[in-house]
Amino acid sequence: MHFDCVSCFLRQAIRTGRLLGCPDECLWEIVRGCGGVLAGVNEGFCPPQNAVALYDMIGEKTGREDPFSEIKRQSTRQVLALYPELKKRIKAEADPIEAAIRFSACGNVIDYGVSAEFDLLKEVDAALRSPFSKWDYPLFLKRLENSEWILFIGDNCGEAVFDRLLIERLGKPVKFAVRGGPIINDVTMQDAVESGLDKVSEIVSTGCRAPGVVINECSSRFRELFYTAPLVISKGQGNFETLNNEDREIFFIFKIKCEVVAGFLGSALNSMFFGTVPLQVE
Amino acid sequence: MHFDCVSCFLRQAIRTGRLLGCPDECLWEIVRGCGGVLAGVNEGFCPPQNAVALYDMIGEKTGREDPFSEIKRQSTRQVLALYPELKKRIKAEADPIEAAIRFSACGNVIDYGVSAEFDLLKEVDAALRSPFSKWDYPLFLKRLENSEWILFIGDNCGEAVFDRLLIERLGKPVKFAVRGGPIINDVTMQDAVESGLDKVSEIVSTGCRAPGVVINECSSRFRELFYTAPLVISKGQGNFETLNNEDREIFFIFKIKCEVVAGFLGSALNSMFFGTVPLQVE
Repeated sequence: MHFDCVSCFLRQAIRTGRLLGCPDECLWEIVRGCGGVLAGVNEGFCPPQNAVALYDMIGEKTGREDPFSEIKRQSTRQVLALYPELKKRIKAEADPIEAAIRFSACGNVIDYGVSAEFDLLKEVDAALRSPFSKWDYPLFLKRLENSEWILFIGDNCGEAVFDRLLIERLGKPVKFAVRGGPIINDVTMQDAVESGLDKVSEIVSTGCRAPGVVINECSSRFRELFYTAPLVISKGQGNFETLNNEDREIFFIFKIKCEVVAGFLGSALNSMFFGTVPLQVE
Repeated sequence: MHFDCVSCFLRQAIRTGRLLGCPDECLWEIVRGCGGVLAGVNEGFCPPQNAVALYDMIGEKTGREDPFSEIKRQSTRQVLALYPELKKRIKAEADPIEAAIRFSACGNVIDYGVSAEFDLLKEVDAALRSPFSKWDYPLFLKRLENSEWILFIGDNCGEAVFDRLLIERLGKPVKFAVRGGPIINDVTMQDAVESGLDKVSEIVSTGCRAPGVVINECSSRFRELFYTAPLVISKGQGNFETLNNEDREIFFIFKIKCEVVAGFLGSALNSMFFGTVPLQVE
């Protein structure tokens, strides 16, 4: 938790309230609710851990247990509609695995719910041109070759359909990990099934409800998968924030969405990341 | 109170804690304290009104009743050291009143406590080149000519010495209004005396401790002065935020320091403002 995360939390809460169509009166209730959350903030937690109380509060103030359910469904439907076209594009590339990684990274960039389907393809085209501040592709191919199976940790709805396209290209059995319960627009068991991930992987729950993977809050079954998986792919910044200090090699794919993480990695804000972090085992 | 003011409050609180040299542990106490303040935020208040609870909390967490006292004294000393030079520069201008207004506006821009004295003069030079989004100078001269006395509402320490230079040029009796008590680095009775404003004006208290002038929290004596003054000059954004809706003509001098006020005025962020707002009486 960085001090900048605190004002970011507040901005997120207000943006979420707006996204959910809350009138000003309710937005001010959310602001006051943020006060309660901040009063109990734990600086030893990483941001996704503290975010649970924040989004629970938003659910309470808006009277909706899963305030993003409709937005999630819409994101999934939008990307599923493009699925055949995206699959064709990946197949047409000289290196379909590389293309599928780039598409999966795209999935972490797009502003679902904001764009019409037509614009979504334009956004994909734009996202494919985003520069990567890290691109550990040769190491990844080496690991992929030697891995009997893969643990793939999902992130958001919509994005999960892009992840499915990547999984289809990996040619190995995949366990696809989802959140232990609904939080923000993160992919849950039900969302993963709606995205068709059950067709290409075994869907498993982390058992943790944070918008990330807090290992000591996960089920023992997930922890075992995590530590024994020959290869782990992790999508999104929330998973990066919670997992980057874990003592095993992980290939992170995400867009660097804030200055705090950009500063931590010494990478440019808004650049894409594909690769491992220091604990890398050679 | 705009929703953006909420995250700005948080950033201000953290910046203030850092300025006061608080260790991280204390900064997190301030963050949690902000939570308490936000939990009780009143959206009907203007930002300077809500800021009172914020800065009181900071005083409490840092164990200092007037946490800015040393910073204020330093700002005053810094500008007093330049006073003879600034006075000479104003005198050398073709229109010394205009120059004195520009210098007084400068006083609202400078980052005291950050700059050495040498750099302060460079900052003055830079500030003098800042564009004004409003410049009601001809109307001001007309009002000045017909006014028997002037109510001049002060803002910050350091800036107050620049205000003294302007007051010296106005050629009319001035009552210089200060905050009812210490808040942030705002000028109080004692600070005004230390700035030499007692030599050029009668110093009066607003009776209100907000970093602005909340008329219904002011003393009845100040309210009377405010409504009967032939001419009112108000320095700084905090005074603008609290007074811009009052039913009398006021000449505001300030730097537009945030997007909320810039949007309200349809002016550029960081531009300077000198003039009245819509309720202007012709």
